[in-house]
Amino acid sequence: MTIDRLRALDLHRRAKGKIKIYPTINVRNEEDLGLAYVPGSVYPSLAITEDPALSFEYTGRGNRIAVVTDGSAVLGIGNVGPEAALPVMEGKCLLFKLFGDINAIPVCLDTSDPDEIIHHVRLMAPTLGGVNIEDISSPNTFTVVKKLRSVLDIPVLCDDQHGTAVLVLAALKNALKVVQKNLQDVRIAVIGAGAAGIATSELLLAAGARNIVCLNSAGILGEDNPKMDHIQRELALKTNPEGIRGGIGEALKGADVMIGLSKGNLVTGEHVRSMASRAVVFALALPEPEIPYEEAVAAGAEVVATGTAEHPNPLLNLQAFPGIMRGALDVRANTITDSMLLAAADALASITEEHELSRQKILPDPFCDESAPRVAEAVAQKAVEEGMASLPLSPGHVYNETWQRLYGSSLVRI
Amino acid sequence: MTIDRLRALDLHRRAKGKIKIYPTINVRNEEDLGLAYVPGSVYPSLAITEDPALSFEYTGRGNRIAVVTDGSAVLGIGNVGPEAALPVMEGKCLLFKLFGDINAIPVCLDTSDPDEIIHHVRLMAPTLGGVNIEDISSPNTFTVVKKLRSVLDIPVLCDDQHGTAVLVLAALKNALKVVQKNLQDVRIAVIGAGAAGIATSELLLAAGARNIVCLNSAGILGEDNPKMDHIQRELALKTNPEGIRGGIGEALKGADVMIGLSKGNLVTGEHVRSMASRAVVFALALPEPEIPYEEAVAAGAEVVATGTAEHPNPLLNLQAFPGIMRGALDVRANTITDSMLLAAADALASITEEHELSRQKILPDPFCDESAPRVAEAVAQKAVEEGMASLPLSPGHVYNETWQRLYGSSLVRI
Repeated sequence: MTIDRLRALDLHRRAKGKIKIYPTINVRNEEDLGLAYVPGSVYPSLAITEDPALSFEYTGRGNRIAVVTDGSAVLGIGNVGPEAALPVMEGKCLLFKLFGDINAIPVCLDTSDPDEIIHHVRLMAPTLGGVNIEDISSPNTFTVVKKLRSVLDIPVLCDDQHGTAVLVLAALKNALKVVQKNLQDVRIAVIGAGAAGIATSELLLAAGARNIVCLNSAGILGEDNPKMDHIQRELALKTNPEGIRGGIGEALKGADVMIGLSKGNLVTGEHVRSMASRAVVFALALPEPEIPYEEAVAAGAEVVATGTAEHPNPLLNLQAFPGIMRGALDVRANTITDSMLLAAADALASITEEHELSRQKILPDPFCDESAPRVAEAVAQKAVEEGMASLPLSPGHVYNETWQRLYGSSLVRI
Repeated sequence: MTIDRLRALDLHRRAKGKIKIYPTINVRNEEDLGLAYVPGSVYPSLAITEDPALSFEYTGRGNRIAVVTDGSAVLGIGNVGPEAALPVMEGKCLLFKLFGDINAIPVCLDTSDPDEIIHHVRLMAPTLGGVNIEDISSPNTFTVVKKLRSVLDIPVLCDDQHGTAVLVLAALKNALKVVQKNLQDVRIAVIGAGAAGIATSELLLAAGARNIVCLNSAGILGEDNPKMDHIQRELALKTNPEGIRGGIGEALKGADVMIGLSKGNLVTGEHVRSMASRAVVFALALPEPEIPYEEAVAAGAEVVATGTAEHPNPLLNLQAFPGIMRGALDVRANTITDSMLLAAADALASITEEHELSRQKILPDPFCDESAPRVAEAVAQKAVEEGMASLPLSPGHVYNETWQRLYGSSLVRI
């Protein structure tokens, strides 16, 4: 979809912030003030000094997350710094609210040192129920998430990594049903070894894929690749079992699945024609896909998906991240595990029933009302099952609560 | 006013956060999503990379502040840490919203090292239009505010310091009219040399007071006092011109004004009786005043004020801090100066006209609709006058805008 630049600028100028603070209680007189501030606040404060976990009962902590970035890898525009990252972070906070009823605050940091970012989040963690790391360049994003998960007892998500991975896995599961292949058997070429490419490859491996080839700008990850960072080197050890050498051409030749998480127009019709029969092509680069939708179809790919809503099979992260965080917050998960992400992907994939699946319909509509409640429920129950939930709610609770939060209130989704 | 503990706990448990995030725009379909997120957010982001000041035009930065604490000096309960500080910080954010239409986010930090606090705020400053430092113990609060003001080009306020100082100065100006004395001539005993006591003494000096005696728990600040921190030592050089030695008894004997910013029940009727005739007694400690209202009146004080709404002359900070920050944000002041605080005090004092003043009426009602608009206007115009405003709005603009924000909208102050 073409979005007019001036219209977008005008919207942002008029909104002056896509989110704002709203009071949940009013203060009209001395009594209200006494209850809400002094001395009323002192009683919950004293209770929390006795038991810090009560901060989830008496404050908004349990439904508040920070969307943290250094502005080093913002969407298609790269390293723009913290001020310029703000419109995108506020957009993310808006989506967390509208599609997960989560109170997300933007935190754009004037440093790209992973240790400083980690320390910053640690210091403010007592204010938060969860953290979403956003648009931090790779490999720093992995360093930050890994370390934060080890030191914090609240869920740490990175939509670039995990949201994308869940979405791709869900879509791929259904696409493979359409083309009648098995995840264990297919060869998958993941083009792009940034946050999304690496995390998606890892989750596909965790889901049972055995033959993944992942590429960065210097070609297939492996011994010969001269440009790998430490995260890519780690992944290289777990991928490319056939020892293929070369670039996109070599990786796609005979491959069953292409997953593009890189840059526009890197892939040609010739490349797609060289893939195995009944090929699946996800060209998810933004704003331009690795290969235009029509061209991939014309080249014989059976299932084609992109990252925008212009064509069939739009794969949009907003189907994944709000539900994942919603589920983790609701049961007060102390982390987010691969199992929880796998459960999220299963839940998302299962919304579209088998008889509805087709080459032009591998996932529910991006605005499907079921996505967030189902994903949240799956993540929450997996957290309970794994013993990661401080508040082990019974099955169905999170689904119902999420539905009620999102569609039962007149305040949101007006 | 007695606030029932269980009622306060119940309110906090039900509210689960006294503030929440609210979307300013909706996302119902692909077009909305394109405008608000991808690629719509990219256009303002690119514009901001060209000119970082546009972050105030295209995002909520200009009306967003952080309420930052380490939980080391929370109201009457002291050093309770970051989790337990949350109910109070959320209360503050609520008041910033309801009485200033400012989007304030709580930031409770797991460190009491002033350098770490300073660094934390610096790193996240690109997200913010202003900062309010809250309930950090003295002298750290002074170190933090001073350093942040020197390194940031957004306004840094500390309500404990500046909000209190403005309120006390405004109240004292009017009280002195009632008792027909001049600020330049009176002897003022400030009991308490924490954040509020120090900052109030400093602002009174800036306003023209010449004879202030300030006390900490070891007595009058001065050469003999064995327990002074570096901030108190600085103030000692500027106060106590008569070289009085001793404690509360000596400080109050013959004093015209007592300003209590310390702890409950430190002052007796005997102390008040020893003051000069037509004495002014502000007993502002919370939750218990330095001397009960009735006792101070019975001991002959002509004007008595406390920090609660149970008696005449309640002095509540909410009359000062929302308007101060509102004015500073509206003209994008790059700092907050003493002159701006003096202007705020003048504006607040002038709301109650001279013919309305009495010993039981030295300031407008705490919920007076005029307070925030008038204070904001005064602060904004002073910032413009001093060349501190990046957006020099014309006189009257901020008053009208603030009025419209607070009382012209159906969303807030329901």
